[in-house]
Amino acid sequence: MSKPLLLICNDDGIHAPGIRALVEAVKDLGDLVVVAPDRPQSGMGHAITIGFPLRVQAQEGLFGPEIPAYQTSGTPVDCVKLAVDRIMHRKPDLLLSGINHGSNASINVIYSGTMSAAVEGAIEGIPSVGFSLCDYALEADFGLAAQVARRVAEQVLNHGLMPGSLLNVNIPKVDIRQFKGLKVGRQAAAKWKENFEERTDPHNKKYYWMTGEFELMEHGEDTDEWALRNGYASVVPVQFDLTAHHALAGLQAWGMQDWVF
Amino acid sequence: MSKPLLLICNDDGIHAPGIRALVEAVKDLGDLVVVAPDRPQSGMGHAITIGFPLRVQAQEGLFGPEIPAYQTSGTPVDCVKLAVDRIMHRKPDLLLSGINHGSNASINVIYSGTMSAAVEGAIEGIPSVGFSLCDYALEADFGLAAQVARRVAEQVLNHGLMPGSLLNVNIPKVDIRQFKGLKVGRQAAAKWKENFEERTDPHNKKYYWMTGEFELMEHGEDTDEWALRNGYASVVPVQFDLTAHHALAGLQAWGMQDWVF
Repeated sequence: MSKPLLLICNDDGIHAPGIRALVEAVKDLGDLVVVAPDRPQSGMGHAITIGFPLRVQAQEGLFGPEIPAYQTSGTPVDCVKLAVDRIMHRKPDLLLSGINHGSNASINVIYSGTMSAAVEGAIEGIPSVGFSLCDYALEADFGLAAQVARRVAEQVLNHGLMPGSLLNVNIPKVDIRQFKGLKVGRQAAAKWKENFEERTDPHNKKYYWMTGEFELMEHGEDTDEWALRNGYASVVPVQFDLTAHHALAGLQAWGMQDWVF
Repeated sequence: MSKPLLLICNDDGIHAPGIRALVEAVKDLGDLVVVAPDRPQSGMGHAITIGFPLRVQAQEGLFGPEIPAYQTSGTPVDCVKLAVDRIMHRKPDLLLSGINHGSNASINVIYSGTMSAAVEGAIEGIPSVGFSLCDYALEADFGLAAQVARRVAEQVLNHGLMPGSLLNVNIPKVDIRQFKGLKVGRQAAAKWKENFEERTDPHNKKYYWMTGEFELMEHGEDTDEWALRNGYASVVPVQFDLTAHHALAGLQAWGMQDWVF
């Protein structure tokens, strides 16, 4: 039996410590190929590049002699598309994205390039997982996150995932001795309350920096935010079909189907 | 009673014909404010701008003397965030995004800047609708799409929308005499099969253009794709909570909560 084929990507760029930690953690699980952006692409969400062509550059030896690595000029989603169409010779058995520097729990999943790469993998029919450590520091300790990533990756290789779903795994910033383990749950309801900071440039023109505060809108104990705030890593199954089935019946009742134009 | 306040945005840029058609169609429904990107931002998905500051520039008179208009250097989602935090004096009663040049039905919803602006509105608690015309041509005829947009906008102002949901409205490229009306349904299962075109630049380096084919993966008659292919406009309720509830029970059964680290 041939070894599983793993595609590794991220949104912090191919030189980020988090992707290196992920590669180290899973490199004996199969044959790895790394395809990642050539620079940080946080907050890129599910962006793709339409108006410009893309570059792909082999990065020989970056993760050791056995692991082919490529940087691209595209977004995280572009990386997955390029990997699947151009770089890899067969469909990967597993896509792992991360380890992200910073939380992608709750509403963050929708802004996250890390998670969008995993979403794109799932759209392609590849079992896909995104990993994020709730610590933005470049010098963050990825030790615990790497252990979690390895065990979840093994599990997904063994079990597969429900069609139409992927996993969003977030690891708290805690000492391993305080770590309480994994908790499966749903995404907490939350939003960012923006507060753009206005500044004036040397030419007397205004510009704005996006800043904001995370607003948790509930306290359900079955959520990712509850898990992370209580010393657990959160595991949330994510879907990419966005139909709001709970709203269908109400809409039907509007009678729009009978409007005449 | 004060007039409703409407926020108008898009992803094709403030100078696109589609946003002008939308403004014309709904301008007597309330007080409008237009906030849109200063250049085309198709395929930006839910991207936000973190590493750069943003510019905002008033565009006086662009849509007539009564309608304040602003262009920003940001993504469609940035536009909504800037509008809500910095530009508008109160929360809008309705957000309309579009009219997009090209379909955002089915899986396209996830790549679409037009729809991501509407999603961001919904996250902010604003009833939000994205409109797209299945015609990429700059000189497309927005007549029918504008009529649909106006009636749906009126309806949403009257009824509101289910919490946690927004609407994705796509209008087929048909003559109004062939138009069969509106159909409420779900997002069809589909994906893009990428086919990157490799070229060589004048410096003998390779680059890649993203091209692809839309692959419809089902033929359900309750879907947006079926509606559009049969002369209807599609109305799909969309949600931004990405939890795959159908996958929760299966994941719980893996026993990850009992792993020891």
